Amino acid sequence: MLKILRVLSCRQQLSESLLSTKADVRDCLWRLRGYTSDRISAPYSIYKGKAALSLNPCLPTFTKLTSGMIVLDRRGSMMMTFMPAIGERKYDWEKRQRFALSATEVGSLISMGPKDSSEFFHDPSMLSSNAGQVRKSLSIKPHADGTGYFVSLTVVNNILRSRENFTVPVTIAEFAVMKTACSFALPHIMGWDRVTHQQYRGTVGHPPKTDPQVLDLEWEK
Amino acid sequence: MLKILRVLSCRQQLSESLLSTKADVRDCLWRLRGYTSDRISAPYSIYKGKAALSLNPCLPTFTKLTSGMIVLDRRGSMMMTFMPAIGERKYDWEKRQRFALSATEVGSLISMGPKDSSEFFHDPSMLSSNAGQVRKSLSIKPHADGTGYFVSLTVVNNILRSRENFTVPVTIAEFAVMKTACSFALPHIMGWDRVTHQQYRGTVGHPPKTDPQVLDLEWEK
Amino acid sequence: MLKILRVLSCRQQLSESLLSTKADVRDCLWRLRGYTSDRISAPYSIYKGKAALSLNPCLPTFTKLTSGMIVLDRRGSMMMTFMPAIGERKYDWEKRQRFALSATEVGSLISMGPKDSSEFFHDPSMLSSNAGQVRKSLSIKPHADGTGYFVSLTVVNNILRSRENFTVPVTIAEFAVMKTACSFALPHIMGWDRVTHQQYRGTVGHPPKTDPQVLDLEWEK
Amino acid sequence: MLKILRVLSCRQQLSESLLSTKADVRDCLWRLRGYTSDRISAPYSIYKGKAALSLNPCLPTFTKLTSGMIVLDRRGSMMMTFMPAIGERKYDWEKRQRFALSATEVGSLISMGPKDSSEFFHDPSMLSSNAGQVRKSLSIKPHADGTGYFVSLTVVNNILRSRENFTVPVTIAEFAVMKTACSFALPHIMGWDRVTHQQYRGTVGHPPKTDPQVLDLEWEK
Repeated sequence: MLKILRVLSCRQQLSESLLSTKADVRDCLWRLRGYTSDRISAPYSIYKGKAALSLNPCLPTFTKLTSGMIVLDRRGSMMMTFMPAIGERKYDWEKRQRFALSATEVGSLISMGPKDSSEFFHDPSMLSSNAGQVRKSLSIKPHADGTGYFVSLTVVNNILRSRENFTVPVTIAEFAVMKTACSFALPHIMGWDRVTHQQYRGTVGHPPKTDPQVLDLEWEK
Repeated sequence: MLKILRVLSCRQQLSESLLSTKADVRDCLWRLRGYTSDRISAPYSIYKGKAALSLNPCLPTFTKLTSGMIVLDRRGSMMMTFMPAIGERKYDWEKRQRFALSATEVGSLISMGPKDSSEFFHDPSMLSSNAGQVRKSLSIKPHADGTGYFVSLTVVNNILRSRENFTVPVTIAEFAVMKTACSFALPHIMGWDRVTHQQYRGTVGHPPKTDPQVLDLEWEK
Repeated sequence: MLKILRVLSCRQQLSESLLSTKADVRDCLWRLRGYTSDRISAPYSIYKGKAALSLNPCLPTFTKLTSGMIVLDRRGSMMMTFMPAIGERKYDWEKRQRFALSATEVGSLISMGPKDSSEFFHDPSMLSSNAGQVRKSLSIKPHADGTGYFVSLTVVNNILRSRENFTVPVTIAEFAVMKTACSFALPHIMGWDRVTHQQYRGTVGHPPKTDPQVLDLEWEK
Repeated sequence: MLKILRVLSCRQQLSESLLSTKADVRDCLWRLRGYTSDRISAPYSIYKGKAALSLNPCLPTFTKLTSGMIVLDRRGSMMMTFMPAIGERKYDWEKRQRFALSATEVGSLISMGPKDSSEFFHDPSMLSSNAGQVRKSLSIKPHADGTGYFVSLTVVNNILRSRENFTVPVTIAEFAVMKTACSFALPHIMGWDRVTHQQYRGTVGHPPKTDPQVLDLEWEK
């Protein structure tokens, strides 16, 4: 059962690219392996009484086409990880649950005013025969007195017949860090830093020779 | 006819530099070829019922003068591409239309409040004998209920006697991504990241010898 | 006595990592030495009549685990340094006092509106037998007429039986620089620039082979 | 006469570092020469009926101390250049005047609301025997109808018995570009990108050996 869930979770990450490429599970695992090696981790963590929440940007992956073009393969996300408290300043990593915010969901978070709420729904097994069996919902709700937000994740798993809920109160200052850090990370999880960075590799004033057909494909109908 | 249009579109991209340099069409194509090779693509795409919209930053190009100075050659832009829907989740790439936002038009977009509208007009054949034959207008209008914007492109082509219109409803969250990503990209399409990046190549504390005349040209009258 | 204080101050910097790693003092000094070598300094300084204030970002340090993962070791901070005036445009560097804003405290600063106040408390000897002996408080209070803020540091040292206070009036423009510079620096003191930068080192399209167990630890339960 | 003015202008650039280092004029010219070689230029220009205005970031310079520390030598600035119009789309480069915004003046510009005004005064020959002979003032004033700003530079030169004035109307969109580009450039003209960038050069987990005295100087009293 554990193995099945792993694959589902992996599929969740790839759901958008699966829409068009129909990568099989082996392919999916393979890419994740490549992605996770030599990885740097620096989560922003908020530890509270009943649960902890951490944010970590996950970068997109790219593929080089035979034409030489490099295109986005798997989209990046802002990974939110929740852990339940099991004692004073102790949290159970084994019982963590994750929610990967897409670029547009990050856009929703960073545009929230002090009185705004947001709610996002994910189905990790979307597009598979298990669609609807696991449902995740993330909600961000302001405190009545304007001093912060409640960030909650609910995971309902019909396969395991379980329901988990994590709620972390987040102060205005902590939310400001989340917004600033997410604004910083957004172009990176979209892959735009790759696009804007490529100029440094180019030569100046001496355009390389290219098949005119490529130009046509790129710029015109 | 198609070939003529291609050149016009290319001219549109170069309209600003054409004002001063009068590059001929061969020159223009050549630069684009250099620019498009080895390119990384990571558009931010919004797929809706009747049309899709994608944003992609286009970087400026630079030229090295005989004095050693590197100056902006062709300005960058934020390329918006619209495609009509031809079925469920299917869009016709062949019928796409483009609109390249200048730095100032990007400035207009990122300074829009929730009730603001913007409208931009481009003439791809500006300054040629076909001036006024093709007119493009991009409009961004807020929903009455404040839940987002309508982003529309209209292309009227008197040569082909055609009129095309694309309208994509954009949510507040999607518009927040557009604004954040455009704010990130703006210094890059202006070439300022090149200016601020150059220091890393310089040595510290040992200024190279330079013709004093260059100093005079640079800093004084 | 001076030596003891030095160690306490060093502990303050490491207080967060001490919570989990219990690094001893030798370890702590060692890391600081590594950190401070080959260092670039470019503080933003505000010189006023009675005291001066300068801001300088302090970067986090990272450690490579045997698994190959690189994790945050010591958190970064925004170092605020206060110096008392001892004459016209002269300040006493020997009598400086420091206050290291954490990421969340930086979040508090950058989210301040024109009428907002902030106050932060630090105990450099927290978790040691000297806990409570030295107390530092930083306050940011708006001018009544909205033309700026008072930024004050108070250091009460029960060991030295001393009490020092520094107050620097900061204009709206200077505070805008502080906010913009802190927003720029925040992802860096969190280490997120390291996370987003790592992609440039990776190869595209050829994922390296990795122990599947690492994948499991990273992505699943 | 021209030569004297050139030196004065150079002094203006260095006025802040002159406060402490008393660099002589030869030194000053030398640094500028080093700075201007191999330079990349990508000004943001606004061409209007009576005058043109362009913005270009000027980076700071650094010096390596014998201790190995690299410190800020000359501060960066945001250079504003004004040129009078001498015909349709023609501007007189020979009659240009410059105004170098400091970091704090940039902070003032980027914190301006739609109804706010700013005014800055510079004396290029400050601290010399010619103090007060040349006075420059830059003002930014909002249009009455909220559609933009007037940006004006006035240069009164008592040595040449001249008074020059340049006024450029700037739209909301153009001002948004100025603010976004200045916010991007601010950490660079402060030198903070150098501070945050240095980590990439450091090794991870193996701190180099350093004189403990350096540590003491850096971190303690």
